[in-house]
Amino acid sequence: MVKISIIGATGYTGGELVKILTSHPEVKLVSLFAKLDKPQVYIDDEFPTLKGKTHMPCFDFLPEKSPEDIDLVFLAVPHTVSIELAPIFLKKGIRVIDLSADFRLKDPLLYSKWYGKKHTEPNLLKTAIYGLPELNSQRIKNAKLVANPGCFPTSVILGLAPIIKDTQGTIYIDSKTGTSGAGKKPALGLIFSECTNNIRPYKVLNHQHQPEIEQELSSLAKRRIKICFVPELSPLDRGILTTIFARLKKSITTTTAIDIYKKFYMNAPFVEVLDEGVFPELKNVIHTNSCHIGIKTTGRNLIVITAIDNLLKGAAGQAVQNMNLMFNIPEEMGLR
Amino acid sequence: MVKISIIGATGYTGGELVKILTSHPEVKLVSLFAKLDKPQVYIDDEFPTLKGKTHMPCFDFLPEKSPEDIDLVFLAVPHTVSIELAPIFLKKGIRVIDLSADFRLKDPLLYSKWYGKKHTEPNLLKTAIYGLPELNSQRIKNAKLVANPGCFPTSVILGLAPIIKDTQGTIYIDSKTGTSGAGKKPALGLIFSECTNNIRPYKVLNHQHQPEIEQELSSLAKRRIKICFVPELSPLDRGILTTIFARLKKSITTTTAIDIYKKFYMNAPFVEVLDEGVFPELKNVIHTNSCHIGIKTTGRNLIVITAIDNLLKGAAGQAVQNMNLMFNIPEEMGLR
Amino acid sequence: MVKISIIGATGYTGGELVKILTSHPEVKLVSLFAKLDKPQVYIDDEFPTLKGKTHMPCFDFLPEKSPEDIDLVFLAVPHTVSIELAPIFLKKGIRVIDLSADFRLKDPLLYSKWYGKKHTEPNLLKTAIYGLPELNSQRIKNAKLVANPGCFPTSVILGLAPIIKDTQGTIYIDSKTGTSGAGKKPALGLIFSECTNNIRPYKVLNHQHQPEIEQELSSLAKRRIKICFVPELSPLDRGILTTIFARLKKSITTTTAIDIYKKFYMNAPFVEVLDEGVFPELKNVIHTNSCHIGIKTTGRNLIVITAIDNLLKGAAGQAVQNMNLMFNIPEEMGLR
Amino acid sequence: MVKISIIGATGYTGGELVKILTSHPEVKLVSLFAKLDKPQVYIDDEFPTLKGKTHMPCFDFLPEKSPEDIDLVFLAVPHTVSIELAPIFLKKGIRVIDLSADFRLKDPLLYSKWYGKKHTEPNLLKTAIYGLPELNSQRIKNAKLVANPGCFPTSVILGLAPIIKDTQGTIYIDSKTGTSGAGKKPALGLIFSECTNNIRPYKVLNHQHQPEIEQELSSLAKRRIKICFVPELSPLDRGILTTIFARLKKSITTTTAIDIYKKFYMNAPFVEVLDEGVFPELKNVIHTNSCHIGIKTTGRNLIVITAIDNLLKGAAGQAVQNMNLMFNIPEEMGLR
Repeated sequence: MVKISIIGATGYTGGELVKILTSHPEVKLVSLFAKLDKPQVYIDDEFPTLKGKTHMPCFDFLPEKSPEDIDLVFLAVPHTVSIELAPIFLKKGIRVIDLSADFRLKDPLLYSKWYGKKHTEPNLLKTAIYGLPELNSQRIKNAKLVANPGCFPTSVILGLAPIIKDTQGTIYIDSKTGTSGAGKKPALGLIFSECTNNIRPYKVLNHQHQPEIEQELSSLAKRRIKICFVPELSPLDRGILTTIFARLKKSITTTTAIDIYKKFYMNAPFVEVLDEGVFPELKNVIHTNSCHIGIKTTGRNLIVITAIDNLLKGAAGQAVQNMNLMFNIPEEMGLR
Repeated sequence: MVKISIIGATGYTGGELVKILTSHPEVKLVSLFAKLDKPQVYIDDEFPTLKGKTHMPCFDFLPEKSPEDIDLVFLAVPHTVSIELAPIFLKKGIRVIDLSADFRLKDPLLYSKWYGKKHTEPNLLKTAIYGLPELNSQRIKNAKLVANPGCFPTSVILGLAPIIKDTQGTIYIDSKTGTSGAGKKPALGLIFSECTNNIRPYKVLNHQHQPEIEQELSSLAKRRIKICFVPELSPLDRGILTTIFARLKKSITTTTAIDIYKKFYMNAPFVEVLDEGVFPELKNVIHTNSCHIGIKTTGRNLIVITAIDNLLKGAAGQAVQNMNLMFNIPEEMGLR
Repeated sequence: MVKISIIGATGYTGGELVKILTSHPEVKLVSLFAKLDKPQVYIDDEFPTLKGKTHMPCFDFLPEKSPEDIDLVFLAVPHTVSIELAPIFLKKGIRVIDLSADFRLKDPLLYSKWYGKKHTEPNLLKTAIYGLPELNSQRIKNAKLVANPGCFPTSVILGLAPIIKDTQGTIYIDSKTGTSGAGKKPALGLIFSECTNNIRPYKVLNHQHQPEIEQELSSLAKRRIKICFVPELSPLDRGILTTIFARLKKSITTTTAIDIYKKFYMNAPFVEVLDEGVFPELKNVIHTNSCHIGIKTTGRNLIVITAIDNLLKGAAGQAVQNMNLMFNIPEEMGLR
Repeated sequence: MVKISIIGATGYTGGELVKILTSHPEVKLVSLFAKLDKPQVYIDDEFPTLKGKTHMPCFDFLPEKSPEDIDLVFLAVPHTVSIELAPIFLKKGIRVIDLSADFRLKDPLLYSKWYGKKHTEPNLLKTAIYGLPELNSQRIKNAKLVANPGCFPTSVILGLAPIIKDTQGTIYIDSKTGTSGAGKKPALGLIFSECTNNIRPYKVLNHQHQPEIEQELSSLAKRRIKICFVPELSPLDRGILTTIFARLKKSITTTTAIDIYKKFYMNAPFVEVLDEGVFPELKNVIHTNSCHIGIKTTGRNLIVITAIDNLLKGAAGQAVQNMNLMFNIPEEMGLR
């Protein structure tokens, strides 16, 4: 049994982690923490859907009282916070899966440009493993510190990895996201009356996930990839549906493209490459850890559409998938 | 032309007032005010749906610079604020339609119990007219200060007025409301992920509109009416659908009950009493100033279902209807 | 391992059964059937959310080729169809859980009045057990034929069972339901544009679940219970939130009422009686088999609010809970 | 007063036409028709939101009894039907605005390829004017037959017209649409449970509006334009938000691009070119006839985002705008 703590258990991502891990046969969920305005709450009062399933306390997190006797900690905290927390655990020999953005960008200057804060742990950046299991499973297995990918990057990178080497030029991406991606926090732009009957593009060509996507795609492509990325807040609780337009070096048929993807993801239990003429729908992936991918080409134009649950494959589910790899547990355990 | 100012123009209700009044043929919208964190905004930047229709500035409201040369002011401000503002205008001879709750309850002690603040203008309570045009049109015409009814009370009182004298015992009410009723403000309970796929009862038997409903129904019934009122936040932007269960003194048929209602509302242009077997749907009343009423009886049990747009018949539309009466303008003008 | 078939696997309820049973450790899902316009489909093409989890075929159901070597069949078919199917399986010694309404009403005349067809198996009505595990667990254990309760009745009966004997007079009920309760079928009244931004009362005092509720409540109360039942189609995929207004024989406090409920449901793993001042929200029960209950009294007025997932506790989840009881499997297995 | 009939008054588009035209000061709405299964309905029973506003009958349309004494007919009927109806009216000297696709494609072979039926009125194709007022106002004024543009084409063409000559290569388009675009009809894929919590790409690179867009853009660009068009059914009643990615011949700044658009649309009352850094939101255009356009460039990449109400600027509103031009009525009348 892997002994685990979660820091940030009261957010949407933290809540999903609790839900998954309380049912996971190989895990002992030892303790929960969050930033609270009181010493303690019960997690099933925060997420009443857990009533009857668990009644764990969740404590206000104090770094000086951070948990000791555990094998792994999940950091489900805002970016810039993980930089402070990760070293505390790593020094104790506790492995870390960080769901924030703090250890995803290899270049500390890029981090400070996009996240507005100097990166104080550049050495950890070098050892952190980008936790996309479909691409990095071997390195994840031995990682001390896993940087769990962002939700948008997961939806884009899985959609392009098999074919990125065959593309050229700018890649155009339109991503529709549910509002839970913005976190469980009061904000005028998130209230129901502002979001229902609406779609709102935001941070157009200016989203902090852009450099993360470009970093990973460039690494796969062995060329400098530039993307134009348009995220759109959609009237959904959960889910990301991403449409990718790319230009291929040479024309291939849809059938061939799908074959390439199917081979690439042959051993990936959570990626479903759909048959020709079939495209992903969000309702087919929400509440699952799956990524569905639909593909169509016309001449040298490639259209890829992917769908994930932003809180699962885009966050908590992927983190557990990484945990399974790190502790030699079957990759799908706890995630079906 | 009636010269008008709106205080509180940037909230949902204020925005609806602007939309209606910029198209109203008998009105000159002189100035807009709101509580701002800067001296001025443009109203079509606040509500981009107004772009191309109006480009009025909206100023930060300072009581010492309140508008002078106007005939009427709409106060679309939170409760407890209107108590301060209404006297400023009334002293200048400017008529006031107050959309807050500050002048609705006749008993100042009841006000302080439910709204948590001593009522400092008890004399105005005596002269304020409860602005439900279907019941009080004559008094509204000459009113200096109109207390525009709450959204829930409008949906309940219109649903019971024709028959309240024939009821006995407690009246049970279940009201489903859209989230715009809570105002344009950041609050965790209002964010999309907390409201979609959800219905949330709140302030069960404890909503501040309860005494307002009981006051008006008791006045109509000539007996002390007690209600059990359950409001429920529903995954809707706008609208209130209210289900009322009452016990009649003696059994009447549905047909008879509908006849009573149709006669009662014969001259009410915004009330539609539906035919037997037909019931209101929210989509038929939102974006209108109408109240639809459906009725069914079985023995001595009466079921009345009403539907209104909370921002129109439940707030801004009704306020304009009152304005029309006050200035001898046809009642429907600007509201179709 | 209990060997199981599902008839009607392609509907919403059938799909939920497949999802639960493919993960259930004590079950072998042997075969799936439905009314198809071709010989066979794959269930994960029907419900792509199952991709990666199961790839079972689902066959067009032909009574003459009904499955033989199974222990239990779930009938997730429209009412009037189960009357034909149940005897086929019972004769072979196969136990039946019927999710239709065909075996819920004890009085065959009541059935024909509400469902428009003569009941051709009145003898089975006598032996069928009403499958509400919180009330009938002993009889369910030995049942050959379980009549799985309707979704609305589950939400009402669980909300009143502990206290129904202490009530008098008519009981008033307002139930908000998601659209999945109407089934997976094309109908103008169900399309998105007709349902979003809307709440639509329907079958007011005329819903076919009314006699089922009255039958069960009367049996518990030992008096003839009459209800006024208003169902309302709400802009939700799943879930039922029911508000119940009842009159108590004598006044009790909210605290006392909650105590009565907590004792009554002490051993019911799926019923959560909420603490004073807390009320159910749909989002806390959807995708679970739980029923949350909130209670408030004022004088002799009782307000009970319940919330369930109509497809789980209101249908498929409850059916599996019944199956667990029938085969001596722990009641919660497969349902957390 | 322009005397008008509507054929197809009971669909979503027809209903919007009725709503607009009953309030239009220069129009006399003479008669309403639709395909009915009875001789007559009242339009306010079909659209109860019209109750109190109009109580016109709507008759089952019989070609042999088509209206005579009118100046203009709106055909709000499915494609392939208008081919039959338009000549009937044109022969009588009645001008026609056709909201179907039947007279939009200049090439009859293209029509038969995409709409599955031989075009039997190729001569009318030559005289029909494509009714996009921002581009064709002079020709619309004198048109006998106006082909009202499709909803997607309106959102794309307005978004590219000012700059299409400066683009090269394929244009990539992702359009999110509400479900009302599919019409008021029962279809499994349109029911609430299939659309909520979902986004569904459909007819990927295969939508019948693609040739219409390519035809108009090619005509403006004086080159053969190829688009890759991905429409996505989104959990919205109304509205289209379109994201366009294009490659410019040479790099321009966002500021310059916006200037080009603002000059182009200087006299277009319903097009709002947004300031730098501001992008359209659907909620700002639904229930209006406006098209909002946001623009951003980076190097030679151009991103344009447009938003319209599919039923208004994408259908009925634009049709009335065309009518105003045809009858020398101020362009905005009835549309604010």
